[in-house]
Amino acid sequence: MEPRELTIEGRNAVIEALRAGTPIDKLFILDGCKDGPVSTIRREAKKRDIYVKYVSKDRLDQMSSTGKHQGVIAYGASYEYSSVEDILSKAKEANEDPFIILLDGIEDPHNLGAIIRTANQAGAHGVIIPRDRAVGLTAAVARASAGAISYTPVARVTNIGQCMEELKKEGLWFACADMDGDCMYDIDLTGPIGLIIGSEGDGVGRLVKSKCDYIASIPMKGDIDSLNASVAAGILSYEIVRQRMKK
Amino acid sequence: MEPRELTIEGRNAVIEALRAGTPIDKLFILDGCKDGPVSTIRREAKKRDIYVKYVSKDRLDQMSSTGKHQGVIAYGASYEYSSVEDILSKAKEANEDPFIILLDGIEDPHNLGAIIRTANQAGAHGVIIPRDRAVGLTAAVARASAGAISYTPVARVTNIGQCMEELKKEGLWFACADMDGDCMYDIDLTGPIGLIIGSEGDGVGRLVKSKCDYIASIPMKGDIDSLNASVAAGILSYEIVRQRMKK
Repeated sequence: MEPRELTIEGRNAVIEALRAGTPIDKLFILDGCKDGPVSTIRREAKKRDIYVKYVSKDRLDQMSSTGKHQGVIAYGASYEYSSVEDILSKAKEANEDPFIILLDGIEDPHNLGAIIRTANQAGAHGVIIPRDRAVGLTAAVARASAGAISYTPVARVTNIGQCMEELKKEGLWFACADMDGDCMYDIDLTGPIGLIIGSEGDGVGRLVKSKCDYIASIPMKGDIDSLNASVAAGILSYEIVRQRMKK
Repeated sequence: MEPRELTIEGRNAVIEALRAGTPIDKLFILDGCKDGPVSTIRREAKKRDIYVKYVSKDRLDQMSSTGKHQGVIAYGASYEYSSVEDILSKAKEANEDPFIILLDGIEDPHNLGAIIRTANQAGAHGVIIPRDRAVGLTAAVARASAGAISYTPVARVTNIGQCMEELKKEGLWFACADMDGDCMYDIDLTGPIGLIIGSEGDGVGRLVKSKCDYIASIPMKGDIDSLNASVAAGILSYEIVRQRMKK
């Protein structure tokens, strides 16, 4: 899957792209520009946690390929999303119990990229991310995935909780990573499994957590609260690998 | 340990800071400026993998607190390094076999921060990093460590290989992470141990690798080459935790 590089220039084009959910990696806005359309763009960008950089007119002129940027240029790369069905088919074709990583709101592109990379190496069949309040498949994510984005399918769903209900019908069990659960070494993680990793700030949401069969805790011996989300995903994924290898 | 925030302005001040090994997080240089002292600064910055941003005079004037930036401003935060002896004492005080993470050239501040965070949670007694060709304790590392930098000692040494020789005299065994070793689940990692993680690009150096007692491999089922360095450090650290808990 080759990324399609995108540069979107001009107010209306950028507003349309934002509303269509086109993955935007970075947004460049003319410094000091605050009229109606630009405010709309800033509001939409904030909603979707897009990185905005305020730059000079000279800089925008330099970046522009059309010469008609109207004070706004968006950089993006569009990677194709897979479907949940694609991920289940991948497990079926390999004749393996499904192993899917579901992310409840990862916002940092380095973390999402590293998790897709881990999913690939741990033999997970795919990654599922929510459509809103999370980073999508941007160019930064692709870079951090070190190429794994081209091999491991990533599906985007409207609602992680609803997606879990549908996957339960397919026989999956769900384990989420949280502090107040059972030690991960004491939980049987060998069956068809969905591993849920929460967001960097808030962890796993209440509703999603209530739908989990297991709450798996990584033993914490330290003075701080938690681990980096991609590190936690790696440790839990490899506990699944270890148990499956032993079985 | 409170960070001392630093802004260093002016050519000579920045050159001196670079030569003294002051941890610099970011360097701002006047765009287009290429005279002797600035070339020296750029060369030193490149050697130490410091992030350089070329900016306009207006921007520098805005950032400057002295008004005498001469085209160069460095941002840094200085965190205190511990010594290898401090780390060994920490293990002794806890009455535990030493568990130290040695990094053979980590360059990304997110990775170093995440590894210090993992070291804290996995109960490692400290982290050892090389003085050259690696990121030091910058403000970005402190942020990524989520506060762990204040609890887990980080020592900086001139030569990782020589440091290993000295730690061997203290009874430590060394395991490095690499592709062509034995599966980590089959190696006894319960004793006094130094875990070595290689750099993002090149992995563990040849000489360091030759000094290791074990080469530990994380099972890789994927299509790509490797895992993110901080994720690999997390997985191996927790294999040590698991084996120590079981013992």
